Amino acid sequence: MRSFEIKNRTSTEEIKSLRLITAIKTPYLPDGRFDLEAYDALVNVQIKNGAEGVIVGGTTGEGQLMSWDEHIMLIGHTINCYGGSIKVIGNTGSNSTREAVHATEQGFAVGMHAALHINPYYGKTSLEGLVSHFGRVLSMGPTIIYNVPSRTGQDIPPQVISTLAQSANSANLAGVKECIGNDRIKQHIDKGIVVWSGNDDECHDSRWNHGATGVISVTSNLVPGLMRDLMFGGKNPSLNAKLMPLIEWLFQEPNPIGLNTALAQLGVVRPVFRLPYVPLPFAKRVDFVNLVKNIGREYFVGDKDVQVLDDHDFIVLDRY
Amino acid sequence: MRSFEIKNRTSTEEIKSLRLITAIKTPYLPDGRFDLEAYDALVNVQIKNGAEGVIVGGTTGEGQLMSWDEHIMLIGHTINCYGGSIKVIGNTGSNSTREAVHATEQGFAVGMHAALHINPYYGKTSLEGLVSHFGRVLSMGPTIIYNVPSRTGQDIPPQVISTLAQSANSANLAGVKECIGNDRIKQHIDKGIVVWSGNDDECHDSRWNHGATGVISVTSNLVPGLMRDLMFGGKNPSLNAKLMPLIEWLFQEPNPIGLNTALAQLGVVRPVFRLPYVPLPFAKRVDFVNLVKNIGREYFVGDKDVQVLDDHDFIVLDRY
Amino acid sequence: MRSFEIKNRTSTEEIKSLRLITAIKTPYLPDGRFDLEAYDALVNVQIKNGAEGVIVGGTTGEGQLMSWDEHIMLIGHTINCYGGSIKVIGNTGSNSTREAVHATEQGFAVGMHAALHINPYYGKTSLEGLVSHFGRVLSMGPTIIYNVPSRTGQDIPPQVISTLAQSANSANLAGVKECIGNDRIKQHIDKGIVVWSGNDDECHDSRWNHGATGVISVTSNLVPGLMRDLMFGGKNPSLNAKLMPLIEWLFQEPNPIGLNTALAQLGVVRPVFRLPYVPLPFAKRVDFVNLVKNIGREYFVGDKDVQVLDDHDFIVLDRY
Amino acid sequence: MRSFEIKNRTSTEEIKSLRLITAIKTPYLPDGRFDLEAYDALVNVQIKNGAEGVIVGGTTGEGQLMSWDEHIMLIGHTINCYGGSIKVIGNTGSNSTREAVHATEQGFAVGMHAALHINPYYGKTSLEGLVSHFGRVLSMGPTIIYNVPSRTGQDIPPQVISTLAQSANSANLAGVKECIGNDRIKQHIDKGIVVWSGNDDECHDSRWNHGATGVISVTSNLVPGLMRDLMFGGKNPSLNAKLMPLIEWLFQEPNPIGLNTALAQLGVVRPVFRLPYVPLPFAKRVDFVNLVKNIGREYFVGDKDVQVLDDHDFIVLDRY
Repeated sequence: MRSFEIKNRTSTEEIKSLRLITAIKTPYLPDGRFDLEAYDALVNVQIKNGAEGVIVGGTTGEGQLMSWDEHIMLIGHTINCYGGSIKVIGNTGSNSTREAVHATEQGFAVGMHAALHINPYYGKTSLEGLVSHFGRVLSMGPTIIYNVPSRTGQDIPPQVISTLAQSANSANLAGVKECIGNDRIKQHIDKGIVVWSGNDDECHDSRWNHGATGVISVTSNLVPGLMRDLMFGGKNPSLNAKLMPLIEWLFQEPNPIGLNTALAQLGVVRPVFRLPYVPLPFAKRVDFVNLVKNIGREYFVGDKDVQVLDDHDFIVLDRY
Repeated sequence: MRSFEIKNRTSTEEIKSLRLITAIKTPYLPDGRFDLEAYDALVNVQIKNGAEGVIVGGTTGEGQLMSWDEHIMLIGHTINCYGGSIKVIGNTGSNSTREAVHATEQGFAVGMHAALHINPYYGKTSLEGLVSHFGRVLSMGPTIIYNVPSRTGQDIPPQVISTLAQSANSANLAGVKECIGNDRIKQHIDKGIVVWSGNDDECHDSRWNHGATGVISVTSNLVPGLMRDLMFGGKNPSLNAKLMPLIEWLFQEPNPIGLNTALAQLGVVRPVFRLPYVPLPFAKRVDFVNLVKNIGREYFVGDKDVQVLDDHDFIVLDRY
Repeated sequence: MRSFEIKNRTSTEEIKSLRLITAIKTPYLPDGRFDLEAYDALVNVQIKNGAEGVIVGGTTGEGQLMSWDEHIMLIGHTINCYGGSIKVIGNTGSNSTREAVHATEQGFAVGMHAALHINPYYGKTSLEGLVSHFGRVLSMGPTIIYNVPSRTGQDIPPQVISTLAQSANSANLAGVKECIGNDRIKQHIDKGIVVWSGNDDECHDSRWNHGATGVISVTSNLVPGLMRDLMFGGKNPSLNAKLMPLIEWLFQEPNPIGLNTALAQLGVVRPVFRLPYVPLPFAKRVDFVNLVKNIGREYFVGDKDVQVLDDHDFIVLDRY
Repeated sequence: MRSFEIKNRTSTEEIKSLRLITAIKTPYLPDGRFDLEAYDALVNVQIKNGAEGVIVGGTTGEGQLMSWDEHIMLIGHTINCYGGSIKVIGNTGSNSTREAVHATEQGFAVGMHAALHINPYYGKTSLEGLVSHFGRVLSMGPTIIYNVPSRTGQDIPPQVISTLAQSANSANLAGVKECIGNDRIKQHIDKGIVVWSGNDDECHDSRWNHGATGVISVTSNLVPGLMRDLMFGGKNPSLNAKLMPLIEWLFQEPNPIGLNTALAQLGVVRPVFRLPYVPLPFAKRVDFVNLVKNIGREYFVGDKDVQVLDDHDFIVLDRY
């Protein structure tokens, strides 16, 4: 189901060179459908502040809470509107190989530049199964493999990556989004594998001390310009230290709970949550206002005053 | 779920000016998935020969045999590759208002220029129901209403069109694809409604004698240049007469049975059918070869010799 | 995907003997989901009054407005609760052969007794295509073919039925639900094909004068006992005449608009409509109250007073 | 969307009393659809050997590789055929609350006796989010909560269970399938929470030394009678020791890789795998044959000779 006509087709080499990729938030309308106007504003602010790529429907963007048709639509929308300005990487991974194959085929058909692929979380599989799973999707286009055992319950060992890097479709392997830490990053780099840090709190060191190409970031949803500086401006431990309290606040609960709460407080998305996500409690929302003041409102997305928001301001949905 | 960022957004006025719109064929791989390479070639030949729009997933393109995710993907693909060269009109209609609303929202989100909307076939409804159904989708973007009682079992009476033309969202009403005939076309024209003929055998007269803007054509899949001449070159009864045997052949069985058979014989699509469609029988395939010879192979799409094809050349699928 | 373990498996012969089958209404909650409690009450009143079968998700039950998972769930629910008391016939037909095959397989897997199959409406196909389409599903279990050209835009000619009746899977062909009229019914009967009338206004004559086995009825949703009498009690032109004004009222707009309005007025379903259906207007609702009084409230389902209902009592949904 | 008509409705107390529940394997046809005949045979052998419940579409049954309509269909099928002989517990959990709510509603509508609910794996959430997620589904019927951090990446702490046990719908909380170990089991038991071991290698001790009610077992797919003895026959360390090599073999790779390989070798399911699962390698298949001989072929399901099977005997599918 291949097409050679896709506009703005991107080479794997271009993907390999990206330093700041944002795992973009998906905002919702009060009835739970996508709020595309808010989404467009979020993407525009990323482009304006120098992000080079977006992950559409990652765990941050709550791809796991989308139907596949919503998911592919959002990839298509993003490509249509922004494909010339930013690289669009669709999270078309799944713990079901059938779903991953189908979604990846569709994502490339609507023009996405690259795919992000997770190992089969929850169901898990053997190493042979991992190689078979990734092998099925690697043939379709530029691919980033995503390793996050704290979510998947299973590490992707370096030997699996090496096997893929030597497979028939290795030219499509852009690299690895790695959350295990800097030692693992070094292991990959030593074998010539491109790596992005998947941990905002480590990404400065990963980039400048351990050979990572860049970061796939959650925090950049909030402060894209500062994250751009962190990835492009050379070693900058003081900026890194300045961001650390924000990052710690963001990840005190499973992402994107913090991010969703923060973007609502900044007035750039409606305070609408799809369950099982719920907002951070009141005290934490007060903390966020203080964090914004300490870092400087001007570095954050949006132009409204940051607010605490009351519990009753939030809409939490189980049907949508 | 509206976005103001869609690339190549088209005005209703632009849609109203189109003279040749092709209800494009969807070609398949042997396992029943879309054959996007063949599809791309079909669209390219339309652009090259002067078609100004394509209907994606119409009854000709077998939208009724697609899952909605396939359908939206094909619209997104077409916009991504060809949105700058040709108007892309998605058939996001359905006999279920829920489906029509959902698909139309998604189609516009991925960038389609206009929607084609059928009245609720099979289930049918009252005139009030028709107005409510069309009213729900008309707000979303440029819209063509499609009237084909021989398929739907129910005529859309002119008063329904008039009501929509006076509704709050009338600015989105591009016009009507009308299959009832030239008297009805005249009725619409007299009220200032733009009309496209939905009958290839009548479209010459509709265009030049009855005020139709153009045609939404099946035959143009085969001979796009000749159909272009028919819609742009002024009255041309001899060309019309020359095409008539081809048109009659094409519609001897419910469309797209003839078209599918013909495109396979021309070697531009694989001979793969999704049931309930089956190829025309051998004798009819012989007739088609003779038709091509009489009109001239050079006017038809593709550059291979036209073939009869044996029964065993065809793949007919009930699962895909 | 066959199972030999299904409980209460029914033979084709048993299906052939049914005289009163009700095309059961699907009632909704205010958010558009199924109202199973109301549904259960509707089915119970059918059983109590002597209906021998129900069509689940027919056009009357608005199968065309269901997602397939809703549809199969409703079949499964009906079998689970009532499979021992009434024959459960799932309308697993579709204009897409793929969908019909998939749904029929699933319907028999959850235990339905028989399938109702329509010809491919809207998309239509050739006679060869019709035979291929029905042939694919006939192998799975007892099957009733449904002919209603006023909805499908295409008659199923008797020769198609004859071909199926002589095919390898003919033992599964229970018969035809025929809406063309009594001459056609006679044609089928003469060939030994079992027929149910699909027209309530003709069913008395079809049954007693033209050889029909019975009726697949809409009106029996309202007055099951009277319809039972009409099918079981011998010729009864006075009862037939008594029912005629009700039947005419019911079918003044495309079914199930009248039925939905009536059942809401009788207080047995919530006044919730899925678009494209909308209630009959006020004046017609007044007429219904008079019809009920003339025939006798005691013959109608439910035990509340029949009401006119105001426009604002109705909920009309385009998302659900 | 509640019904009070469901046949064989089960009380939470009945669920609480079950000692041997099998997480039943889903067998496939060569094209990847369900092999219902093989499935029926598997369930029948469970009933015959004294299993009291089955989990349908658990991780063992590969619910994560099913479409939801397949999943609900399989629950409906199981209830229809076996609902009077064995308790049918549907794994209608999901990491998406929307999906869990929808599937659970449908599962109870088709008659399942209880639901199994996992915490949101992969996406994860906060403790407040966990309580909200489980709270949404607990209202619908008898519920078992499933805790398996090695798959989900997140432990369900006892306080979440306690909160649910004190909530408005606590009467529906049947208990917990716990994989953390015997200390945790004791914690639950001390609070009056019913627990099933989710680890076959620990279940003997959990049952006889730590207060577990029973086991939700994988191994019982292979040796249901021996697992019945283990749960019903009193302390039996020698039987436990006899089974241990088999259990270790089964779980050397993520379940159900071992189980799928074993059942194919026993000739009771076709050797068909849905990716990302692949069979155990040849040497391990030889080991299994020896294990069967040591324990005794007569204790295993099926009546064919156990075979090693060659690599080319297996069918591994990425589309189905």
